[in-house]
Amino acid sequence: MKLLEERIAKDGIVLDGDVLKVDSFVNHLIDVPFMSECAKELVRLYNGEIITKVLTVEASGIGFACLVADIISVPVVFAKKSKSRNIAEDVYAAEVASYTHGNVNTIIVNKRFLSPEDRVLIVDDFLATGNALKGLISICGDAGAEIAGCGIIIEKAYQPGGELIRKICRVESLARIASMSPEKGIKFI
Amino acid sequence: MKLLEERIAKDGIVLDGDVLKVDSFVNHLIDVPFMSECAKELVRLYNGEIITKVLTVEASGIGFACLVADIISVPVVFAKKSKSRNIAEDVYAAEVASYTHGNVNTIIVNKRFLSPEDRVLIVDDFLATGNALKGLISICGDAGAEIAGCGIIIEKAYQPGGELIRKICRVESLARIASMSPEKGIKFI
Repeated sequence: MKLLEERIAKDGIVLDGDVLKVDSFVNHLIDVPFMSECAKELVRLYNGEIITKVLTVEASGIGFACLVADIISVPVVFAKKSKSRNIAEDVYAAEVASYTHGNVNTIIVNKRFLSPEDRVLIVDDFLATGNALKGLISICGDAGAEIAGCGIIIEKAYQPGGELIRKICRVESLARIASMSPEKGIKFI
Repeated sequence: MKLLEERIAKDGIVLDGDVLKVDSFVNHLIDVPFMSECAKELVRLYNGEIITKVLTVEASGIGFACLVADIISVPVVFAKKSKSRNIAEDVYAAEVASYTHGNVNTIIVNKRFLSPEDRVLIVDDFLATGNALKGLISICGDAGAEIAGCGIIIEKAYQPGGELIRKICRVESLARIASMSPEKGIKFI
């Protein structure tokens, strides 16, 4: 999505340690009018697909997920990060290693909110290692829910997640980064 | 808002310890088409007010904040919960005691995202003790931002937060609970 690439090039800040800071429009301040255009583009890409729910993980995916779900008039389910390792019986759970924070979170979804009747669009702001998506896909599997695909705002396409997840389901990323560094900036695919 | 009261009466679950569970439409599964109607009602109540940003706190306020902001075409800023007590110089910070979790969180907003030019609508899913709103109001004060008011989905009007916050700024709550208990159910004002 050309507009998004231009915005990332303009406002994204590349830091050492493979960090792309987009907190001025994606994940601290959310530029809702702009993100709403991104949501429309994602819905366009999945046009014709049956989608009954949008699934994401707290916190920064929730806003974009709601904008997408608002267009197609379906609910959002967001997986919660659980501090406890004691998982209650009424939830689906998956472990997700966080690249950014260097820890492992357990994410949970109450069993009432996903079922074999669902056809799910999984949405997240970033795709890099694919760990968060793997966790969400595993939860869909446990629930017997079908996956329509994944919708990502920014994919670090030089990291292994995209290839890995595309072996499992459809992935649409609105911007795909081929390479980035503080010195040379950001190149898109 | 009649529709919301009916929905709370139908799907809200009152638990011991003054807990109202609305995870089936507000804060785990988000019933986006329904919440979008709630967002329209809040925007109607603030019709005529200048609002430049919607401010909330992660995680469960983000979805509703984005739906509100989408209607009035402004950005959302969400305060982040910081695990660290070392607060960086580039953020506004406030301490928020959590009634539900029995702990104190520091919430932070990067100084780039609020300024004296802003007129802010503060949005959250619940108002009970008012601690979260107090934290967000304090951050607006530090930034020199003006507050248009607060927009709340569900207010526990028998708790002190509503009265306390109304001394500081305008508060609109879409549903106001007069009393609730597992035995007697929920009564609205």
